[in-house]
Amino acid sequence: MIVILKKDATEEQVKHIVDKAEILGLKAHISRGVERTVIGFIGPEDVLRMTPLEVFPGVEQVMPVLAPYKLVSREFKKENTVIKINDDVTIGGKKLVVMAGPCSVEGLDEFRSIAKKVKAAGANILRGGAFKPRTSPYDFQGMGEDGLKIMRDVAGELRIATITEVMDTRQVELVAKYVDIFQLGARNMQNFSLLKEIGATRKPVMIKRGLSATIKEWLMSAEYVMASGNFNVIFCERGIRTYETAYRNTLDINAVPVVQKLSHLPIIVDPSHGTGVWNLVPSGAKAAVAAGANGLMIEVHENPEEALSDGAQSLLPTKFDVLMKELRVVAQAVGKEL
Amino acid sequence: MIVILKKDATEEQVKHIVDKAEILGLKAHISRGVERTVIGFIGPEDVLRMTPLEVFPGVEQVMPVLAPYKLVSREFKKENTVIKINDDVTIGGKKLVVMAGPCSVEGLDEFRSIAKKVKAAGANILRGGAFKPRTSPYDFQGMGEDGLKIMRDVAGELRIATITEVMDTRQVELVAKYVDIFQLGARNMQNFSLLKEIGATRKPVMIKRGLSATIKEWLMSAEYVMASGNFNVIFCERGIRTYETAYRNTLDINAVPVVQKLSHLPIIVDPSHGTGVWNLVPSGAKAAVAAGANGLMIEVHENPEEALSDGAQSLLPTKFDVLMKELRVVAQAVGKEL
Amino acid sequence: MIVILKKDATEEQVKHIVDKAEILGLKAHISRGVERTVIGFIGPEDVLRMTPLEVFPGVEQVMPVLAPYKLVSREFKKENTVIKINDDVTIGGKKLVVMAGPCSVEGLDEFRSIAKKVKAAGANILRGGAFKPRTSPYDFQGMGEDGLKIMRDVAGELRIATITEVMDTRQVELVAKYVDIFQLGARNMQNFSLLKEIGATRKPVMIKRGLSATIKEWLMSAEYVMASGNFNVIFCERGIRTYETAYRNTLDINAVPVVQKLSHLPIIVDPSHGTGVWNLVPSGAKAAVAAGANGLMIEVHENPEEALSDGAQSLLPTKFDVLMKELRVVAQAVGKEL
Amino acid sequence: MIVILKKDATEEQVKHIVDKAEILGLKAHISRGVERTVIGFIGPEDVLRMTPLEVFPGVEQVMPVLAPYKLVSREFKKENTVIKINDDVTIGGKKLVVMAGPCSVEGLDEFRSIAKKVKAAGANILRGGAFKPRTSPYDFQGMGEDGLKIMRDVAGELRIATITEVMDTRQVELVAKYVDIFQLGARNMQNFSLLKEIGATRKPVMIKRGLSATIKEWLMSAEYVMASGNFNVIFCERGIRTYETAYRNTLDINAVPVVQKLSHLPIIVDPSHGTGVWNLVPSGAKAAVAAGANGLMIEVHENPEEALSDGAQSLLPTKFDVLMKELRVVAQAVGKEL
Repeated sequence: MIVILKKDATEEQVKHIVDKAEILGLKAHISRGVERTVIGFIGPEDVLRMTPLEVFPGVEQVMPVLAPYKLVSREFKKENTVIKINDDVTIGGKKLVVMAGPCSVEGLDEFRSIAKKVKAAGANILRGGAFKPRTSPYDFQGMGEDGLKIMRDVAGELRIATITEVMDTRQVELVAKYVDIFQLGARNMQNFSLLKEIGATRKPVMIKRGLSATIKEWLMSAEYVMASGNFNVIFCERGIRTYETAYRNTLDINAVPVVQKLSHLPIIVDPSHGTGVWNLVPSGAKAAVAAGANGLMIEVHENPEEALSDGAQSLLPTKFDVLMKELRVVAQAVGKEL
Repeated sequence: MIVILKKDATEEQVKHIVDKAEILGLKAHISRGVERTVIGFIGPEDVLRMTPLEVFPGVEQVMPVLAPYKLVSREFKKENTVIKINDDVTIGGKKLVVMAGPCSVEGLDEFRSIAKKVKAAGANILRGGAFKPRTSPYDFQGMGEDGLKIMRDVAGELRIATITEVMDTRQVELVAKYVDIFQLGARNMQNFSLLKEIGATRKPVMIKRGLSATIKEWLMSAEYVMASGNFNVIFCERGIRTYETAYRNTLDINAVPVVQKLSHLPIIVDPSHGTGVWNLVPSGAKAAVAAGANGLMIEVHENPEEALSDGAQSLLPTKFDVLMKELRVVAQAVGKEL
Repeated sequence: MIVILKKDATEEQVKHIVDKAEILGLKAHISRGVERTVIGFIGPEDVLRMTPLEVFPGVEQVMPVLAPYKLVSREFKKENTVIKINDDVTIGGKKLVVMAGPCSVEGLDEFRSIAKKVKAAGANILRGGAFKPRTSPYDFQGMGEDGLKIMRDVAGELRIATITEVMDTRQVELVAKYVDIFQLGARNMQNFSLLKEIGATRKPVMIKRGLSATIKEWLMSAEYVMASGNFNVIFCERGIRTYETAYRNTLDINAVPVVQKLSHLPIIVDPSHGTGVWNLVPSGAKAAVAAGANGLMIEVHENPEEALSDGAQSLLPTKFDVLMKELRVVAQAVGKEL
Repeated sequence: MIVILKKDATEEQVKHIVDKAEILGLKAHISRGVERTVIGFIGPEDVLRMTPLEVFPGVEQVMPVLAPYKLVSREFKKENTVIKINDDVTIGGKKLVVMAGPCSVEGLDEFRSIAKKVKAAGANILRGGAFKPRTSPYDFQGMGEDGLKIMRDVAGELRIATITEVMDTRQVELVAKYVDIFQLGARNMQNFSLLKEIGATRKPVMIKRGLSATIKEWLMSAEYVMASGNFNVIFCERGIRTYETAYRNTLDINAVPVVQKLSHLPIIVDPSHGTGVWNLVPSGAKAAVAAGANGLMIEVHENPEEALSDGAQSLLPTKFDVLMKELRVVAQAVGKEL
């Protein structure tokens, strides 16, 4: 049983509900988020069903625990969630969002140059990695806080929103200072400590699907964030691991309509990782828009062959520009805008 | 080394080439197709490279054996192959092909009724199974030749082309009498005897990708048909098997551009099997068209819940009609027609 | 509902049962095997449950249709099935069976030489391929009937049983003349026509697990053979396809106890294909025996680097001999003999 | 290029090497471990090859960077690594290690009771979870530090070593105070921040293979720990994710010999997770020992049906006792002791 409290519920009200429930033999798990508090109750099924928690002061909604994900589900919220990033950009509505930029921030000049180009082509969010999860400890691990500062400065100049990956619970506060959206990487999709830490903020987070995560596990990771009080969650399909070796990952286009049926949260697609090869990115991007995705994340780099990470899957700015034009037509064909 | 002979190469010319090659220590594999004869030579690499087979009378082309697929590859033929089915329908050109109909032929009236509806909605090829590969021996195994007759009769009435699955080398001749295109099912993708038998005809064949076939294995199966002399091969992506259980199969949209880069042969997509759930079919179909597929195969049934096979993934005719209208717009957005 | 008739059931008795059942609205599927006839009835569940088919003359057993596999299941037969190959060899008992030999029969002298060595090391069944399913049409496709003759001659000399693959319904009769056990290859596990054709004989058949076949699909393939009347079925786990590229296949050791819990039929393991690398074969073989497998199939070749197929996974005869000695100790440790 | 310094290398020597290298255009990554310092150099290949770093004072060994894992590899260290846990227990030698206990620590009495039983049966390391990575935020998340205290107290009473999972960089110091071995869970295998944090201690760590991690990625995660200076790494194969749904995970027995060929580090097997079903655990455990694993991790619980986590895969103490007796015989058959 999940009890969602009203935004203005008082500490006294919380205590009252918990006390009452514990007398009945229920155990309470309290998650205090910035926006609201959520209480999960564990106990005998029949007691749970009989207790009229809905009528307690401060309670907004009570959800039974049959489905494994609650707050994430369409049952909890029928209409699509639209997440506001800034005055110009929202995610989840008619207008598609395009997050573009290099895999890693490699320097101020390089980043400013690429940022200008992707913005000119129509991207409305700037991506770039400052902390990089690399398979090898000897590979470039990102510029760290210096990279974050570059992102903030360029974003300020160009008046564009930003997204970057956070890898460690201890980085959450730092990253929050510099960017607009947290990215939770595929390898950290089930880093539950990190999910809770991000859940304790109110900043939007985009959760990438784990390399071999089921749809259900993915929704459950979003549930961790929401159960901690942060309701601004975006999904990102980025390809799954299969037996096929002709491409780095297998873009799972089915995930788009399935997530949209099961959840009210927006889902975007990353065809750069979803294919792993730059010349497959355009078809993957068009397929994603046609399938109903709420946006795209695309890697763009001016010298792909010299990129410090993921060069093979990065588009040149000129090719990105052509693709954006093509995508506009496809978006229109399915009733969206770009 | 693959030697492709001219269409008018004589038996004498073939014998001359083989004799010469054998003197040099090469072993010849002769595939006599209806359209042309192909000879594969196995032997010491250096001998192969030194022998000027190109200049022998009757020889059209000589291909080195570095890549595993030869006749199937873009190297062998740069321009897209366009396969003529009848005066109205070709596969591989600007106009997309849509194969639609029930999973199984279940009776004359039922088949005629659904055939009229899918034709009216814009389908240009009629699908239906007469021999059904079913996981259980106790499930409906298809109507056999009676089903083939129904297909032929309805196709004659409506002047529409047909496609049906062939499961056994002994059925090839029979099936060839009744329908326009062979379908080689996913479970038979590496039934090499069947591939050779179909290769010995000149009838077009659509090869479905095996449940966990790599792109390379799939191309090699087409190579079996082409090496036997039948050059009318169409690929069909129908979803692959992954760890994900939220859908029956995972539609691999990356396969479309990859096959088109590696091969000159057309590729269509089957979103019915590629998803396994009817309400995911529209997004899968739109994604396929946007990604550049040469056509679609879609299951349509008037009473999905009573279908003798694959009911869960069949669209109602009304929903198919709506989908076709939507697909027309998407096709246009990527420079195609439907 | 599956009705298994007594071995001596008459045609009249069969007709009587079918007539009665059809009056009740049931549809009968009759499978006449060499040993016994099996009738499957499809119809309304309640009618099926109410009809006392058990008391009809000629009926041995009636099975409800809840589980998808019937004749294959432990419910149908509690005790382990032990299949007699000849006076010396059975599969499924305390004594383990070892099938060994080259991937392909490449010539009489080569085959005789390797046969002598594997027999001396303790193998009790000789393996060798005459019809080879190869991914490429340009690879060696086997010696065909000449290979079968070599197998028969060497087996006669050495008084040892033989197993070989059959790939096509049209080869079943031919292959049956020369060898003791049919092998149904992984790529043909769901070649239902071939399963039925083999089911119409009484010769033992070893069904290899498909490259990505589920346990349930595998059992269903055996059900095809048994429903056609041939009860002499052996399973062979040979590794499955996964995302891992460090080995050719992933040996699925869990399959051994699971198949033994669900079915009464024996299961052996092929660590040569299950690993794809000769130096992983010994650990795979020992693991299989320790996990309770009823036997092993191992590829042995005198010049692995020159083998016409599967050289990389073939053991040298000397290494096979060492392995057999080690396996004897492991077999003893788990209460078996080798 | 990886430069491993001698244990007694001075700060001055480190500075000298780095300065010299930077003059040559190389970039140095210094990892200061408790036991030794490791420097990775990135730069032009030819400069790296020409620079005689071996002769610098303080340098023990220089490794080229061709293979992606360096310190983990057999090339770096030919003989097996044997990790000392305490005066009685080592991992990697002739004597196998068995880690047993409940999935989660659920209370002092329960833990002491099960601990006594598994020790009596022959287990030499006690497992138990205090911080639990659960798919759902509403599932039991572990007792936290209270659980760690219980583990320490019971371990002290029974004089037995302990292992527990650490999930967050901020828990490393805490967990280190209470237990003997860190467990890095499958979901955190590529939590690079956590790997580095653990690498900064000298406490042994067992790295579970990620749900769909390749062997290479797994070795690279160990490389993170070793590159940070902690050389006490143990691998744990715990089943991988495949398409098969008959069991929770597919125990990858091939991983045992492959890891032992590629690396000098010990590898143990967890058949509880590797199967997910208690009645498959015995065959999995025996297969692991026969394949050459250096030990086992097995979940044991007195009331599996009431366990707060992983009940379905937990053995009863009586069954664990029987299994240990059987394993002793199998261990002996492959030249090991238990």
